[in-house]
Amino acid sequence: MRAAYMYGAGDVRVIDVPDPAVKHPTDAVVRVIRSCICGSDLHPYHNKPATGEGTSMGHEFLGIVQDTGPEVGTVKPGDLVIAPFAWSDGTCDFCREGLQTSCRHGGFWNAGDVGGGQAEAVRVPLADGTLVPVPGIDENSPLLPSLLTLSDVYGTGHHAAVKGRVTPRTTVTVIGDGAVGLMAVLSAKRLGAEQIILMGRHTDRTDLGREFGATDVVAARGAEGIAEVRDLTGGDGTHVVLEAVGHMPAYEQALGVVRAGGTISRVGVPQYEQAPVGFSTLFGPNITLTGGPAPARAYISTLLPDILDGTVNPGKVFDQQISLDQTPAGYQAMDNRSALKVLIRP
Amino acid sequence: MRAAYMYGAGDVRVIDVPDPAVKHPTDAVVRVIRSCICGSDLHPYHNKPATGEGTSMGHEFLGIVQDTGPEVGTVKPGDLVIAPFAWSDGTCDFCREGLQTSCRHGGFWNAGDVGGGQAEAVRVPLADGTLVPVPGIDENSPLLPSLLTLSDVYGTGHHAAVKGRVTPRTTVTVIGDGAVGLMAVLSAKRLGAEQIILMGRHTDRTDLGREFGATDVVAARGAEGIAEVRDLTGGDGTHVVLEAVGHMPAYEQALGVVRAGGTISRVGVPQYEQAPVGFSTLFGPNITLTGGPAPARAYISTLLPDILDGTVNPGKVFDQQISLDQTPAGYQAMDNRSALKVLIRP
Repeated sequence: MRAAYMYGAGDVRVIDVPDPAVKHPTDAVVRVIRSCICGSDLHPYHNKPATGEGTSMGHEFLGIVQDTGPEVGTVKPGDLVIAPFAWSDGTCDFCREGLQTSCRHGGFWNAGDVGGGQAEAVRVPLADGTLVPVPGIDENSPLLPSLLTLSDVYGTGHHAAVKGRVTPRTTVTVIGDGAVGLMAVLSAKRLGAEQIILMGRHTDRTDLGREFGATDVVAARGAEGIAEVRDLTGGDGTHVVLEAVGHMPAYEQALGVVRAGGTISRVGVPQYEQAPVGFSTLFGPNITLTGGPAPARAYISTLLPDILDGTVNPGKVFDQQISLDQTPAGYQAMDNRSALKVLIRP
Repeated sequence: MRAAYMYGAGDVRVIDVPDPAVKHPTDAVVRVIRSCICGSDLHPYHNKPATGEGTSMGHEFLGIVQDTGPEVGTVKPGDLVIAPFAWSDGTCDFCREGLQTSCRHGGFWNAGDVGGGQAEAVRVPLADGTLVPVPGIDENSPLLPSLLTLSDVYGTGHHAAVKGRVTPRTTVTVIGDGAVGLMAVLSAKRLGAEQIILMGRHTDRTDLGREFGATDVVAARGAEGIAEVRDLTGGDGTHVVLEAVGHMPAYEQALGVVRAGGTISRVGVPQYEQAPVGFSTLFGPNITLTGGPAPARAYISTLLPDILDGTVNPGKVFDQQISLDQTPAGYQAMDNRSALKVLIRP
C-alpha cells in the first residue's frame, strides 16, 4: 500500500510499504477513507533530524473495517469507524475514568509496529477499545469531515473546555485560531459560555471562529492583545483561558488574560518545559493550570449526536482536500498557512 | 501598646508603638487575645534585608472587639472574633465567589497603615467583611487554639484539599509535616479520603499527622521517597498531592508522586518562579496544578462547627505557648524546629 513517511524536517514522501495485517487476536485492519494533517505534525516537520528510515505519519482517520482478529467483538468487516488519536484497551482503570491517553495497555500511532493514518490502511491494536463504529453512515456521507474531527481536533477543543470547567457562568478566552482553537470555541459555545474571546490574526479563520460562537476577536498579541482582552472584560480577564498553541508566548498571553481564581487549560502541545508558576503568576491569584492530550475516545459518544443531527459542523475546519499522493504538498500548505487544515482522501 | 516588629533576617523585637484607633467608619479595633507565628513568617526571618524601620508582624489572631466605626454592623465591642489572614469587604464579586484574597477593596496585614497580629491590638479595616464573631466563647475557652487555626493554617490546609478536589474516591499525598501539612491531612480526612500518605521526617509531627488521619507516613525524600509512595499506591502515585512546603524539591516530589490525570494543589508559598510544566511533567499525563493563598474567611463557617462540637482539635499543632514579649524566642524555636507552631498570648 501507499503511506506517507517523514524522513526529516520538511521531507515527507509517499512510499510503498507492506499491507498491514492482523497480528494479534485483538487487532483490526482498517482501510482509511479519510485522514488529515494535524498542527502537531508541523512540529516534526520543523524539527525532525534527517533519518534514513523515515517515520509513518498521521493520527486522525476514518475507515472501513477490513479484517478483525478472533477476539474482536464490537466492530466487524464493513463497519465505518472513527479512530481516536490514541489506541486503548477500554477496560483498564484509566480508560474507565475516561483518560484513554494513559491506558495501561494502549499507545499512539506511528510508534513501534503500529503505523499511521496518512496511509491506505492501518492495523489497529485493541480494536474493541479503540474504534467507534458509526452505523448508518457510508463512505460517501457529507458528514465525513465532521466525523473525522472526532479523531482529534474536536475532542481536543472539547477537552480544553472540559478541563477548564467552562459553564454558562464562565467567560472564556481562546488563544490560537488554528483548527484546535476553533474547536475550542465551538466546545465553549456548546457548554454554554456567553462570552468567548478568540485571539487570532487570520481573518478567514477568526470569521469561522465567529461562526462557531466567538463573541469577540482580538487580533493583537503580547501586551496590546492582553490589554484588549482586559478591556472587553471590565479589566479582569476571563474565568477560563483555552490555550491552543503550545508556544511560550501563548502561555504568557494566557497568564495575562486569566481572571483571579480562574483556569488556564492547555491543549497546544507545549514546546517548552519550564514556565513561570510562582507567586506573581499562578499562585498569588489562585490560578489553576490544567490540560494535556485529549482522551478523544472518551468524548466521541458525547460529541457525535450533534454532528449526526447537523447541530454543529466542525468539518468546516477542513479548507483543502488532497489525495494521499499529494500529502507532501498538504504539509507545505499547512506550514505556509495557505491551508487551515488539510483533509486527505486516499 | 507592645508589638513585634522585624528589622531584618533573624532580628525580631517587641517594641512600643501607638495604640491603634478607629480611622475609617468601617474599622474595628480588636484587642488580641491569641496570635501565633506562621511558617511563612520564617521566609522574611531568613531573607529580609536589614532596615532601620522594621515591619509589624503576624497575620493570625483572635481578639475581643474594643471599638467600632459607625458603619460596622456585624460585630460590637465585647465580641470574640476570628480574623482571617486577609481583610476583605465581603461584598465584591470575588468575595461573593469565596476568593476573599482577591477582594477588590481588601488587603493583607502588615502593609500600608494596617498592623499585624503579633501585638496587643490591631485596627481591622472592613470589619464587617473580615471578622467572624464566635458567640458563646469567652477568652478562657480551651477551644481558643483550635479557633485560632481558622485564621490561617486550618483554612489553608482545607483550601489545598478543596482545590485538589479531595473526595472519598481520591487517594492523597501530603508533602510537608509543618502545621499546614498536618492541617491538609486533617482536611483530606474530613473530606473522606481513605488513603492519606504524609511525607515528613519529624516523628513527633508525623505522629500527630496519624492522629489527624494519615494512613501512611513516608520519611524518605527525593527519589527514595517517591518510590515509597509509588509502592504504597500500586505504582501509580495518588490522585491528589497537597504540597505544603513551597520549595522546589517539594514541587519535584509532587511531580513524582501524582497519578496520571491527578492534581497537585499547592499551598506552600512558592519560593521559586519557574518550574517544569511541559510534556514530560504536567502536560503528557494530564496533571492539573492548582492552589494559592487560602481565602480563609470563606472557610470559617464551614470548619467552625467541627471545632465547637469537639469533632476535630486542630489546635494540637500549637506545641509551645509564649507571651508577646517572648516573640523573638518564638521565632527562634520555629526556625530551629524545636517548636511546630508557637502560640502567643499577649
